[in-house]
Formats: sequence, structure tokens, C-alpha cells
Amino acid sequence: MPLTDRLLLGPGPSNPYPEAVAALTRPMLGHLDPEFIALLDETNDRLRKVFRTANALTFPISATGSAGMEACFVNLLERGETAIIGVNGVFGERMSEVARRCGAEVVRIEQQWGQALEPERLLDAQREHPDARLVAVVHAETSTGVENAIAPLRALRDTDTLLVVDTVTSLAGIPVEVDAWGVDACYSGTQKCLGVPPGLSPVTFSSRAVERVRNRAHPPQSWYLDLGLIGAYVGGSARTYHHTAPISMIFSLHAALGTVLDEGLEAGWERHRSVGERLQRELPELGFRLIAQEGHRLPQLTSAWLPEGADDAALRKGLLEGCGIEVGAGLGEFAGKAWRIGLMGHSARDRSVTTLLGALRELLA
Amino acid sequence: MPLTDRLLLGPGPSNPYPEAVAALTRPMLGHLDPEFIALLDETNDRLRKVFRTANALTFPISATGSAGMEACFVNLLERGETAIIGVNGVFGERMSEVARRCGAEVVRIEQQWGQALEPERLLDAQREHPDARLVAVVHAETSTGVENAIAPLRALRDTDTLLVVDTVTSLAGIPVEVDAWGVDACYSGTQKCLGVPPGLSPVTFSSRAVERVRNRAHPPQSWYLDLGLIGAYVGGSARTYHHTAPISMIFSLHAALGTVLDEGLEAGWERHRSVGERLQRELPELGFRLIAQEGHRLPQLTSAWLPEGADDAALRKGLLEGCGIEVGAGLGEFAGKAWRIGLMGHSARDRSVTTLLGALRELLA
Repeated sequence: MPLTDRLLLGPGPSNPYPEAVAALTRPMLGHLDPEFIALLDETNDRLRKVFRTANALTFPISATGSAGMEACFVNLLERGETAIIGVNGVFGERMSEVARRCGAEVVRIEQQWGQALEPERLLDAQREHPDARLVAVVHAETSTGVENAIAPLRALRDTDTLLVVDTVTSLAGIPVEVDAWGVDACYSGTQKCLGVPPGLSPVTFSSRAVERVRNRAHPPQSWYLDLGLIGAYVGGSARTYHHTAPISMIFSLHAALGTVLDEGLEAGWERHRSVGERLQRELPELGFRLIAQEGHRLPQLTSAWLPEGADDAALRKGLLEGCGIEVGAGLGEFAGKAWRIGLMGHSARDRSVTTLLGALRELLA
Repeated sequence: MPLTDRLLLGPGPSNPYPEAVAALTRPMLGHLDPEFIALLDETNDRLRKVFRTANALTFPISATGSAGMEACFVNLLERGETAIIGVNGVFGERMSEVARRCGAEVVRIEQQWGQALEPERLLDAQREHPDARLVAVVHAETSTGVENAIAPLRALRDTDTLLVVDTVTSLAGIPVEVDAWGVDACYSGTQKCLGVPPGLSPVTFSSRAVERVRNRAHPPQSWYLDLGLIGAYVGGSARTYHHTAPISMIFSLHAALGTVLDEGLEAGWERHRSVGERLQRELPELGFRLIAQEGHRLPQLTSAWLPEGADDAALRKGLLEGCGIEVGAGLGEFAGKAWRIGLMGHSARDRSVTTLLGALRELLA
């Protein structure tokens, strides 16, 4: 098969940083080799800087972002417990489904697609269900391009309810402040603003989340995602074997985190903000209408209704085959009518916006 | 950090095939890109050839081998059902634990470490528990170097009990015959005889296994590993998005499978046999004593007691730091007293044996 290259402006994967690609071919090491353990430790230190946390239990889960989500729920919930979940898009729905499969009672706080969740309603729900074991929210809803505010949920610190946050599409793209926001469990994905190929899910757990896991009545239903067992490998002094780590992917994450931190987290956020705002300013000139609520628009993921009369599939095919550009189709209620345009990680460049708008002008002419 | 290269002669990861390493850097594609879907389809066709099966549902799980194990159990077992599991090493133990976490009643058929399971005892257990939903066996026990015979278990075809087989360390190293042996669910790992970095778990399911999943009373407890949902992406005509596939790792698997099939499966088995037998012939000359039962020794994974008076940790350190060679420590009952030496995939070469024996002669002199 011939090699094909793309400008990846969908909801992820983005184009990985060149450093992340080069690191994939680092010579293989065993998962118990002292050189690999040192590199994993350094990777986890870099993750702490990106998550803005001092949490000891911070590491990449050996699977993609959805497994990071599942890791949070299977470790923090037991059968019959209550979980409060904000739902305003596909990934809030997925959280509900994963929590249900843990045998939890799910209290859904819903909001229309394209609108942001109101933190006060989540806090109210917790006051109504003070026994709820956790409140879970998607920070950056990849299905709608909406940012849900997390900082106000810090108030949960004063309750026995943990705060679980999905930062798959936000981490390294917009500010994420795990410690300052009082987040107890947080998962992300590598293939968005971190600029790494898909395959890992960085996670971090507060000491009270770790305490919760330690005091479970029953072991988590997943052996693969059992934090107690994984923790003995990633953090324990004995480095007890659990499963074989995905070495090459961790090499790649290690390198990309170096790139992200060399640029500076704040500088990276500013780059994402600047190119996203430019796209959102210029896209309406071509007849697109922005979907996400003003003031809650993600710069790294723009959702927009297609111009009047435009043919979704034909237009995406034209971009892909004619120009090598991928954009994302709408999910759920937005299918066939809207697009999701990502400007994440290495793809978050002015040249990406210039290329996409130029191609669209030709195709819509 | 400087790059370090190793000769990987432990229980995995092995040194990946050069083609597998090169393919990691293939330009990134989206998981719904028609070019990626075509490559995934071709990967799954190649997997069918390596598993020796016509099973439609054959694909790589987006996580390591242990997640493939978990995928089999969470999809094929419901709470309160019975599972018969052969246990003669770490990975049989792991199967029992994973099945218990599915709420199953586990009937353990145990055998001493280093000895092979007797298939007749597994068949007897099924006759005693005809309602058992599955019999599960590790084909190649990585913890002991023993091969458990699978072919005689084909008799389960005439019962309502499914046959589940772990081929993590056997696939592409010794004959695996999914269809001829009547295996209903089979999982492997990429980092052993397939010669790919760790990170994926190829799986295949027979039509009666798929039927079983379809007729479940409750959805599987894992959303990430739910075969119904994943199947709609890997096999469905609509290619419904489930989770973002680990693209670069699939590129690598695709390439390595090409290498394996270009050499020819039989020729690859013969290469593993030949180098493994040489090691097992020459290792005792240095004072090592083979552990695995004669007639059931895996050529790709040799377990051996250390020579009288040899210091396990010091000797492994000498190999690693002095010669860049990794071998595996003993697990469980074998810790500190035995080694596991892998000759798998690209590491299964005469030159590996020559190098290892040469280094050992120097260190033991």
C-alpha cells in the first residue's frame, strides 16, 4: 500500500509532533529494564507538569482515552453507588454508560448539545445526593466543541463526593489545573493536543481518590485497569510486573511532553487560542455557522453548521481526496449537518487554517 | 536521555522486526479514513492467516495481551456462570482472577509448575460441569516455558462449552490452529513471536462465540472491550466509531504480519524450533538445568534453573550492563532461582544464541 499523508483537522488524531514520531523508533527496551523505568518516571514527572498536579499516582494507562474513562469509573465506583454525571454530548453519554456498567445508579444532569453545563446544577445535584460517590464532567466536549467549566466544582472538595474530569481534548490545548480545581481523577488521550499518536490515556488520581480505591469492599471489575495493581508497577518500589507496558508509545509520549514543555504550557495554550479564534472568526465568512455557545467555545475544536445547501459527504470527500485534509463529521444529532474542525497539538498552526480556508473557498466556489 | 539498544531475550518484548519499527512512522491517518480502514481490513486478513482461521471477527484489541484475556472473559461470561480454567503458571492464575472479577464460579484444574496440563482432566471437568460456559487454557505458559496441548480439547465442539485459548507467547512461534482445534476465542500479544512492539492484542472469535455474545442477558461489564460495539467498527458496513484506534501500532502490526507471512508461517515455526532446541541443548553445558517437562518444552521460551551457586541478580545485571542482553527473571515459585530465556520473532536467530552463550561463558568463568 502506498503511504498517504494528511493534514489532520478532525477531532483527533491530530498530526503528531515530529519529535513524537521520531521517538517511536527508539530501540526497544524491556518493561523492567532500569533504563525504561527511568524514562517512565520522567514521563510521569512531565505528565504532572502538564496536568498541573503533585499527585503521586500519575501515569499513562496502556490503552486509548476511553479506557482512561473506564479506569476512573471501575476503580472509584462499586455496585449500587450513586454517580452524578453531566451530559451535554457524546462523551457525557459514554460516561453514563460506563458508570451503569459498573452497577452504579446514575443521576444525569443534562444540557442541550452545544450549550455548557451549569456548574451550579451539578453542585445542587450533589446537595440532593450527598452520598453520591462522584461527580463526573467532560471538560472539552469533543462532540460539540463546548467547554464545561470545572473550576467552580472545586467546592466538592468540602464533601465526600469526588470530582472526575475528562480532559481528553483539553489537556495541553486550554488551561487544565488538576490541583487548583480540586480534581480527584482525571484522564486524557494522547492523540489530541498532546500531539502523540493514539494509544495511551494519561491519568492522575488525588490522594483521596487513591484512598477510596484502597478502601473498596470488592476489587474493581477490571483486572487490566486495577489501579492497585498498576500502581505497584508505576509507583511501587518493587516495580511489580502487572502487564507489559506499550514501550514505543511511551517513548513517543515522553518525547511529545518534552516538546510541549519546551514550548511552555502557557505558550501552547496561547497558540491553540490564537489559531482557533482565527478559524472561528473567518469560517462564518464562508457560510458556516458556529454551534457552540459563545463564551464556551473550544479553540481547539470548532463545531459549525454547514453552509446552506452544502453536501456534507461530498465536501469532506473533496477535502480529503483533493487536498489531503481531514475534518470531522458531526456525531449524533449533528450527523450530516455539522462539522467538527480540530486544531490540536502540531496541527494547531496558522498554516493549517490558511490551508483549510483556501481549500474550502475553492470547493465552495 | 541517551538511546540504549538491547538484545531482548526475555519473555517479551522481543526485538521487533525492522519492518515493524519502520512502519511505526507511517504518516498518521484518521481512524475513519478510507485508507486506514483498508489497511485495518488487510491487517485482519493477515491475522486470519496467522491464526489459521476463517473467523469474521478477527482484529487487534487496542491494548496489550492481558486486555485480550479480559476481552474474552467479560464478553463470554455472565455473573454466576461457571468457567473451567487450567492453571499451571502465572497466566492460568491470571485467567482465574479475571474470570472471578466477572462474577463467574471458577473450577480450577491445577497442575504443578513446569508440567503440562492433561487435556483429559479438562474434558473430565467439563463432563462433571456440563453447564460450564467455557474451558480456558494457556497454550504457551510464559512463566514456565511449558506448552499445553490444545488439539485434544477439540472435543468441546460437541458440547455447549466454549474453548478459550491464550496464544500470547505461541502465535507465530509454534503451530496454532484456531479452526482445526475448534478454538472459540483466542487472544495473543504483539510483543512476542509476532515481532511488534507491545501495545495490541490480536483476537479472534468463532461464530458460536459471537452468537454467545449476541445472546447475553446483560451487556459486558467493560464498555471498552465490548465486542458488539467494537465489531460494529472493525467489521460493520457502517464502520461506526467506538474508540480511536491506536493507528501507529496497527501500522506496525500490519507490517510485521507481512514479514511473518513473507517468511512463511511454517518456516517461521521451524526457525523458532531450531534455535530453541539449540539453546536447550547447549545451556546445560553451562550448568543450567531445564525446568519444563520433556516433550512439552516451548522452543521460544526456555525456563532453566540457574547453575549451582550462581547469583541471579548479579548475573542478569552483568548480561544487561556488560553485554546489553536482557533475559527474564523467574516469576512466582521460580523467582531468584530460575531464568526465562526468550527466542521470539526477530530475536529468534542463531546469532542470539551464539551471543548469549558467549556472554554467559565469560560471566560464569
